[in-house]
Amino acid sequence: MKTSIATVSISGELPEKLDAIAKAGFDGVEIFENDFLAFDGRPTDVGRMVRDRGLEITLFQPFRDFEGMPEPLRSRAFDRAERKFDVMQELGTELILVCSNASSASLGGIDRAAADFHALGERAAKRGLKIGYEALAWGRHINDHRDAWEIVRRADHPNVGLILDSFHTLSRKIDINSIRSIPKDKIFIVQLADAPLIDMDLLYWSRHFRNMPGEGDLPVAEFAAAVAETGYDGYFSLEIFNDQFRGGSSRLIAADGHRSLIYLGDQVRRMPNAPSFSVKAMPDRAIVKAIGFVEFSADEEEATELVGILRTLGFRKEAVHRTKNVTLYRQGDIRLIVNADGGGFAGPSFVVHGTTAYAIALMVDDAGKAFERAMALDAEPFKQAVGAGEVEIPAIRGVGGGLIYLIDDKGDLGRFSEIDFLPVEDDAQIAPAHLLHVDHIAQTVAYDEMPTWLLFYASIFEARKTPVFDIIDPAGVVRSQVLENASGSLRITLNGAENRRTLAGHFIAETFGSGVQHLAFHTDDIFTTAASLRQNGFKPLSISPNYYDDAEARFGLEAALSDRLRAENILYDRDEFGEYFQLYSPTFGEGFFFEIVERRGYKGYGAANAIFRIAALKKHLRPEGMPKS
Amino acid sequence: MKTSIATVSISGELPEKLDAIAKAGFDGVEIFENDFLAFDGRPTDVGRMVRDRGLEITLFQPFRDFEGMPEPLRSRAFDRAERKFDVMQELGTELILVCSNASSASLGGIDRAAADFHALGERAAKRGLKIGYEALAWGRHINDHRDAWEIVRRADHPNVGLILDSFHTLSRKIDINSIRSIPKDKIFIVQLADAPLIDMDLLYWSRHFRNMPGEGDLPVAEFAAAVAETGYDGYFSLEIFNDQFRGGSSRLIAADGHRSLIYLGDQVRRMPNAPSFSVKAMPDRAIVKAIGFVEFSADEEEATELVGILRTLGFRKEAVHRTKNVTLYRQGDIRLIVNADGGGFAGPSFVVHGTTAYAIALMVDDAGKAFERAMALDAEPFKQAVGAGEVEIPAIRGVGGGLIYLIDDKGDLGRFSEIDFLPVEDDAQIAPAHLLHVDHIAQTVAYDEMPTWLLFYASIFEARKTPVFDIIDPAGVVRSQVLENASGSLRITLNGAENRRTLAGHFIAETFGSGVQHLAFHTDDIFTTAASLRQNGFKPLSISPNYYDDAEARFGLEAALSDRLRAENILYDRDEFGEYFQLYSPTFGEGFFFEIVERRGYKGYGAANAIFRIAALKKHLRPEGMPKS
Repeated sequence: MKTSIATVSISGELPEKLDAIAKAGFDGVEIFENDFLAFDGRPTDVGRMVRDRGLEITLFQPFRDFEGMPEPLRSRAFDRAERKFDVMQELGTELILVCSNASSASLGGIDRAAADFHALGERAAKRGLKIGYEALAWGRHINDHRDAWEIVRRADHPNVGLILDSFHTLSRKIDINSIRSIPKDKIFIVQLADAPLIDMDLLYWSRHFRNMPGEGDLPVAEFAAAVAETGYDGYFSLEIFNDQFRGGSSRLIAADGHRSLIYLGDQVRRMPNAPSFSVKAMPDRAIVKAIGFVEFSADEEEATELVGILRTLGFRKEAVHRTKNVTLYRQGDIRLIVNADGGGFAGPSFVVHGTTAYAIALMVDDAGKAFERAMALDAEPFKQAVGAGEVEIPAIRGVGGGLIYLIDDKGDLGRFSEIDFLPVEDDAQIAPAHLLHVDHIAQTVAYDEMPTWLLFYASIFEARKTPVFDIIDPAGVVRSQVLENASGSLRITLNGAENRRTLAGHFIAETFGSGVQHLAFHTDDIFTTAASLRQNGFKPLSISPNYYDDAEARFGLEAALSDRLRAENILYDRDEFGEYFQLYSPTFGEGFFFEIVERRGYKGYGAANAIFRIAALKKHLRPEGMPKS
Repeated sequence: MKTSIATVSISGELPEKLDAIAKAGFDGVEIFENDFLAFDGRPTDVGRMVRDRGLEITLFQPFRDFEGMPEPLRSRAFDRAERKFDVMQELGTELILVCSNASSASLGGIDRAAADFHALGERAAKRGLKIGYEALAWGRHINDHRDAWEIVRRADHPNVGLILDSFHTLSRKIDINSIRSIPKDKIFIVQLADAPLIDMDLLYWSRHFRNMPGEGDLPVAEFAAAVAETGYDGYFSLEIFNDQFRGGSSRLIAADGHRSLIYLGDQVRRMPNAPSFSVKAMPDRAIVKAIGFVEFSADEEEATELVGILRTLGFRKEAVHRTKNVTLYRQGDIRLIVNADGGGFAGPSFVVHGTTAYAIALMVDDAGKAFERAMALDAEPFKQAVGAGEVEIPAIRGVGGGLIYLIDDKGDLGRFSEIDFLPVEDDAQIAPAHLLHVDHIAQTVAYDEMPTWLLFYASIFEARKTPVFDIIDPAGVVRSQVLENASGSLRITLNGAENRRTLAGHFIAETFGSGVQHLAFHTDDIFTTAASLRQNGFKPLSISPNYYDDAEARFGLEAALSDRLRAENILYDRDEFGEYFQLYSPTFGEGFFFEIVERRGYKGYGAANAIFRIAALKKHLRPEGMPKS
């Protein structure tokens, strides 16, 4: 499988785009004409720039409004094509994309179109060039790849073939089975794009909402599998029009694109009747069995504050690191590591700022294989500094540069806490709070980076993403989306902040994007837990009394229950599967907080309560002495 | 006409929202339930906060999924309503919005719904409260105000009435004539929202794209006129769901909302068979006859550079101010004022930064009336410091705090340049460049502020707005929209920058939003002008040679013409009306530049050329010595 991307898909001027595309690992690049026209160099310069970066030009595009034109427009279209052929020969590329005519001047009739393509094929052949015809979803007469293919068939010219584009086919819900009967040698290139499923005008949707395969909701992998079944083994090329991508970092977007294609290839390879096209094999998506531990970085003073809060939550010290100022706290299956060693596991190269949960350890079925898959999917490896005899844990960079350790229960890795740590007795007076395991980890990212991290997690780990939920912060919308596996052992909520004044945006701005904004622990009895916390001196986040009046009315709660909720500052939700209870800590540090939840069958995350939780949390961020009204 | 706005329409916490709404001049406010629930105070506190700010609570909303429920959901819905009635009485408001049921559990049948409303009306009457029923465009059974009205009619209860919402009616293209037969006393309140015309899922469109009346494309004024014809003279209330507004400044958005309602009232008043509802009369929209002058602020050194460029453009000094360091340059009907007086006309209170075209003077039919209209539409007046005997020109604040002077040809105002200025002879060796008048003024704003300024201009001045055009800057999308009048004497292009790395965004960041990024002058012979400019030592912006190869192919240009264009760095465009020629200066200062255009019948602004112009301009912004590739 050869990978390519159109220059229009990423931001920057042409040299910057080519650098990013080459660095991301693509084999080829489509030159989008405007990127080339706006550039000062001649076509030969551009061709050399591409080749100097180890890339091939896979396509020159687009050539619009060609077929079915009446005279004199027809002659002018052919003249125009000859001029573009000149450019292509200078660039050093052989394939041009002709998209189906959208002009109101164009005439219908597939034989007329086929005749035009035959004539164009003759001209192209003289120069050793090839014509690829693509059906735009909004083409005036041709807007279905099946019709475009019929025109190519009737054009009957070796230099004229078909270009398939997943967006144009899938946005119109055209049966992808129709692809399987096209001869592979007549498919000149395949373009891929995904998009979120929002019912809207096709042109508007295409121009603004396209995204990378796997980032949207279209069955792009199934489309690619149908293509691969023809025997096609040429380029799969990304052509993405997306307002966010145009304003984003060219390097990050190109990297996302490359990951999306590798992941797509892996998905296609695993399909029943897997086509035999050349994709490098990699291990299965890793199955996360549990959250192994979460590691906090803190200086001495911050660590004292953090440990104070952990104690009110019922955590006990379990072990200390043999050589570092690192302590392991535990409750139920929850392990929290407080690293006050100035860089800790991560070594001095890792800069953290304030109390930060900068690393999470995922207990997977096979850490080595998970790491291998992550590497195949362009993840950035991380090597910590380890002392003699200490266990080296495979790790990759995750959200905001934070770490994801990959652990399993085999060999030294399965015993790292015994090897690296010494058990200690904790005789503090702490009431156990019945916290059993990590329910979910909430990470906050800039809105632009949400697709990046959704793709990152979903490609490496066995997980599905939920639909986007808009959370209304008083200062703006925060988009929330969850990655979760079927067993519930991996649940990561990603919140995308559009501006700095939202709670989520403030957290990103203040922590330089370390990612984990809150940890939610599970209890099997929220009221018993609340009583223990009270006994330990824990101060819950105070919720507006108006909330409880409404919840009582909305859910028809018994007064006895709503009184208990109100007394303990517990939020309540319900779905078709059951009930949900949520208890929050106030924020500390730069906006980090804890949550305790009880799920009685409930599957969600209490999104409808987020607005009340945010309003309450924001009060804690308000500088002392500032008026509330 | 009484004005109201829903708290959900603007950003902030409840007190901040109420402050902004009161300050903008609204009479009333709809309390959106979540805003109230997230607030710590009790309902009585909220009611007092509203009244303390001189506002009335016009509506409590929304109450969802009420009518047509099977038991036990029906009983629970009534219980829920009673709880909300408690809240309303504490708040001190009498009207609640019940939106049509969207639940899959709900049952159809308008008699069933009418019976439910009659029963609810009985309960409301006991408390002196009123029920307003609104058809959501995506209601399960009821999604048309005509059906909602039939239910209200059959409910036949004095405490049950109809709520109309322009979005729900207009998004479904329901005939607004159907409103004219509804009795005014059964319309309990009218909600207004506009939206851009994009064909998409109604719920998604409503939740993300609503905007203020006049900011979108829906016939909201016609809708309001139909309402007013019933004799309805109650509140017109804005209910806007818009992601930008939620993240924007509460003060600015509230001010926009108030302006939009005042302008709407004025439009309704002027309609044939104008309904007699109470709207304050104001003068007609001002007709702009010409751009009177543009004033630059510059320190001595900057002024020298600016004047140097003006001379290469063929401008001659015409007059100097009697008392200030202010000089008037002229060519054809173009007057440029260079103010090196440190604050100038604007007085020392006006902070400008670098060379900035901080003021434009619009020559209108009647400056006094234009000013009066601007005041009626909440514009901010500006009074400059004038010396004894000098003419005081009416002025208002425009884009980015820049000034708009309003001048006409009457009395002292018509002779201000003779009264305040002394003519001088300019014997510089300058070839005349045949520049005749200002073709257009290009202003750059943050993307979020585009609706604000489009509404500002279009409400005060006779002008129409063109559809949005996306300009692709290498660093992101820039939205462009034009305000123009039929004669072409007023043409303002507004460019909205989403990020700072775009050329437009850079300009905003560096100039603190002074607004005018470029001035385009009209010539009737671009090639003669180009020759004169060359003679004067003007250096045009250098355009990529690739552009000309493409233009020649695209338009089928004669080689002789395209060679001339290339030699002079002139950009070319063509529309159904004629041809267009564009010649640019490089940028100076913080990104300001000049453009010279010739229109041979052409109506547009060369938007398709913008990408090439931006690429060329950005090269001038690149620090010296930075590599290009």
